[in-house]
Amino acid sequence: MQSAAEGAIATAPGERRNVLRARRLGIETHHEAIAFAHKDCPVCRAEGFASHARIRLTRGRRSIIATLYQITSDLLPAGEIGLSESAWSRLGPADGEEIAVSHPPVVESFGAVRGKVYGHRLQAHAADGIVKDILAGRYSDLQLSSFLTACAARPLDFAETVALTAAMANAGNRLSWPVRPVMDKHCIGGLPSNRTTPILVAIVAACGFTIPKTSSRAITSPAGTADAMETMAPVALDLTSMRRVVEREGGCVVWGGTVRLSPVDDLLIRVERALDLDNGGQLVASVLSKKIAAGATHLLIDMPVGDTAKVRSQEDAAMLQKRLLDVAAAFGIDATVVTTDGNQPIGRRIGPALEALDVLAVLRGDADAPIDLRERALALAGALLELGGMAAGRGEAMAHSALASGRAWKKFQNICEAQGGMREPPVAKQTRPVVAKTEGQVCRIDNRRLARLAKLAGAPDAKAAGVELLVRVDDYVAAKQPLLTVHAETGGELAYAMDYLAANANIVSFNR
Amino acid sequence: MQSAAEGAIATAPGERRNVLRARRLGIETHHEAIAFAHKDCPVCRAEGFASHARIRLTRGRRSIIATLYQITSDLLPAGEIGLSESAWSRLGPADGEEIAVSHPPVVESFGAVRGKVYGHRLQAHAADGIVKDILAGRYSDLQLSSFLTACAARPLDFAETVALTAAMANAGNRLSWPVRPVMDKHCIGGLPSNRTTPILVAIVAACGFTIPKTSSRAITSPAGTADAMETMAPVALDLTSMRRVVEREGGCVVWGGTVRLSPVDDLLIRVERALDLDNGGQLVASVLSKKIAAGATHLLIDMPVGDTAKVRSQEDAAMLQKRLLDVAAAFGIDATVVTTDGNQPIGRRIGPALEALDVLAVLRGDADAPIDLRERALALAGALLELGGMAAGRGEAMAHSALASGRAWKKFQNICEAQGGMREPPVAKQTRPVVAKTEGQVCRIDNRRLARLAKLAGAPDAKAAGVELLVRVDDYVAAKQPLLTVHAETGGELAYAMDYLAANANIVSFNR
Repeated sequence: MQSAAEGAIATAPGERRNVLRARRLGIETHHEAIAFAHKDCPVCRAEGFASHARIRLTRGRRSIIATLYQITSDLLPAGEIGLSESAWSRLGPADGEEIAVSHPPVVESFGAVRGKVYGHRLQAHAADGIVKDILAGRYSDLQLSSFLTACAARPLDFAETVALTAAMANAGNRLSWPVRPVMDKHCIGGLPSNRTTPILVAIVAACGFTIPKTSSRAITSPAGTADAMETMAPVALDLTSMRRVVEREGGCVVWGGTVRLSPVDDLLIRVERALDLDNGGQLVASVLSKKIAAGATHLLIDMPVGDTAKVRSQEDAAMLQKRLLDVAAAFGIDATVVTTDGNQPIGRRIGPALEALDVLAVLRGDADAPIDLRERALALAGALLELGGMAAGRGEAMAHSALASGRAWKKFQNICEAQGGMREPPVAKQTRPVVAKTEGQVCRIDNRRLARLAKLAGAPDAKAAGVELLVRVDDYVAAKQPLLTVHAETGGELAYAMDYLAANANIVSFNR
Repeated sequence: MQSAAEGAIATAPGERRNVLRARRLGIETHHEAIAFAHKDCPVCRAEGFASHARIRLTRGRRSIIATLYQITSDLLPAGEIGLSESAWSRLGPADGEEIAVSHPPVVESFGAVRGKVYGHRLQAHAADGIVKDILAGRYSDLQLSSFLTACAARPLDFAETVALTAAMANAGNRLSWPVRPVMDKHCIGGLPSNRTTPILVAIVAACGFTIPKTSSRAITSPAGTADAMETMAPVALDLTSMRRVVEREGGCVVWGGTVRLSPVDDLLIRVERALDLDNGGQLVASVLSKKIAAGATHLLIDMPVGDTAKVRSQEDAAMLQKRLLDVAAAFGIDATVVTTDGNQPIGRRIGPALEALDVLAVLRGDADAPIDLRERALALAGALLELGGMAAGRGEAMAHSALASGRAWKKFQNICEAQGGMREPPVAKQTRPVVAKTEGQVCRIDNRRLARLAKLAGAPDAKAAGVELLVRVDDYVAAKQPLLTVHAETGGELAYAMDYLAANANIVSFNR
């Protein structure tokens, strides 16, 4: 009936510009664009916008979708529209510039999300549409949550995971390198510290391989690799500068944010963390889309397994490993997964500068360098060297030689210089030791609470803040013996951390 | 290992009040509580709160969970916390009063949502926990969306639907009545106008039955029954006033918002509408929880079926009908579903006052009263009377007699007086006829676009605004013959509506 019908109404085309003056409110909302307008403003009344409405804001040829909140106070006069920082930067207006406000077009790709909810498979073109719309900011938080929940409730199969991975990899910048192999490394997180990346990059580059490593800043952890690296050298390099560093030194450790590899991943991660849903397909797409976009040909994945790590059992690890390797192979990436002990932190210190100090101790060959961090970095670097074509069994020895000879340390200094100049990590103004209440044998260290403690002490914003762990699982400890030291930049932050400890004495547990 | 372990850390209990001064910002966010604080404010820094963090705000014994946005401008000084209207009213502070800010407890019930995502069945105690936490505002929008998506991706079975319905009915006020039967009526929406409720209540009450009807305001439609009724009498009655009206007149038509029957339904509806996911179990729980809470014993459900109505096929209607009746029976409610034609509006006018005028024309027995509205109200009232115990086949005749004799009209006036005084609906200042471009036969009227047109004209906030439809499906129309009239309170709103028509000439379609 619809196809045989035609519009009955006699009309003249109309055009109407509904404009409000832009005002920057200085409100941080991550990527989510938010607009504020007075409830009595004529545009909102006429368009029938209520609070929480999705609206389109247009300035010249730029257009964004935002969520509207209505104001009933004198915070804003009618006639103005207040914008969050993300909305402001994406729209780019001058203060007071006129912005057109209208109803947004329907987000067509959300139909495919509904289809997924009802059990249809996610097709490649649908995944492309969803990812493009998310990148353009057309998805509300409600829609992002619905998409991720649908992919958890109806798990992505192999083909769907490949489709989503490809869509995400294609949605940002793509790097390509004139050499081969191009090495890369990823750690499935959940473990505080474990800052093997700078050591591994230095070793692999010192051995003559190319390893253009991008890393993330902390999202919910006390430090990301980029945060730790930044206490030693600049990391916010653009694509051109990153290329220059890699061409000169073979490797780099830069922040992924400025180079925009698989940027949709960064948008999804916030929602994933908030929901904390296990979502294997999404995790695989998240990891691999970044590596595909980085131009990697050989990828080592460190997968810590432990009851407070992200992967909690060997069974989960095996399933996730298979998916990662299968999907990587579909994109021509030679990958290997190394499952590691995820039951306690690797390295002694947690927090950006504290982790950097662990890294430097290992690279410099200091006598008191954390052995576990050194061993794990060597094992991972060795596995990656072998994956890249070294004869089987020689990788770890080669890594060891690069580290012991000082070549890795020299390479690391050169990389830092090439990234903009090496510097020493800062040291905290306030430290406080925390002691054992009785004697006992340490049986458990709670990674999640330890991370929380470091964050309360100020990490990652306070670069020198964090926690230094003085015992390991199985250690025998005397009463009053120090278990850890809290580092903070201010007395207030130190007090917060100590308050948290008062309520969480089982961050370190003894056998009873 | 965990059970045999004990905390190893020696600590002294600490207590710390992290306080900020409350400031009312006058921002409407529906139920969602939002807080704004300066990025440099010591509490946020120390607690490690980032934008989008969920925080707990405590004032004396009141405590709410809010989503935090961080300010980088001088919109707020460090030391203050700005609150949205919903946060302000739930926390109830004086301006400048000190509010304690802390990390919220984990929302335990969200674990059951995750379980549902992974395919576990929703147990009764889990449904209770989820509904209580939603009512207390502990769920973020991300979590609400995840819950509703999970229930759509893994549809609720009978027992789960009963559990959710019970949890929702128990989460607000519960009415009980000393008489039996207690009649009620619900319409599965999607059809503009169709304002049968005030007519049906008048008829049923005039026949001596008890029908304590609560209705909703418009959420995404141009008018809810409460909006239309409000143009004739007050509807925002509290529980005591509502009881008094029903005891005196046998019936009422009041707004459900103030009496708080199944208030969680109101919180879920906003998210459901935004996602537009078919979710049968949720729909059943939504409809029936309100009726259970209202103390209904006999329920008539009007289910319009049509390709632009909410229920689009007879097959969907049959499935939904079975679920509604089964679940109603589980709660001892005698229910019946009447499927009706949902292919075009019922009654001629759309918008709060315009729909009220249709209702009044039918009740008064005006010669030009819309026949379709009259017939449908009589059919539904008849079905409800029979459900309530009238001998089979006599219901519609009884309804007809109540209407034709003027008893229903008298009853309606008495109900309006009891609710606070009857009044005449307002009339729009601006009207504009819209004519046919050619001659033809009307084959289709797009309910959704028609609703949108009425909203652009100002409905439901502008009470007199809306659309008057002058033709019906199958009518033959001459060129230039009026098809509809747009009503608006301001010229600006009229212009918006006309612009929309210019781009949507197929609100009314001809056979080609």
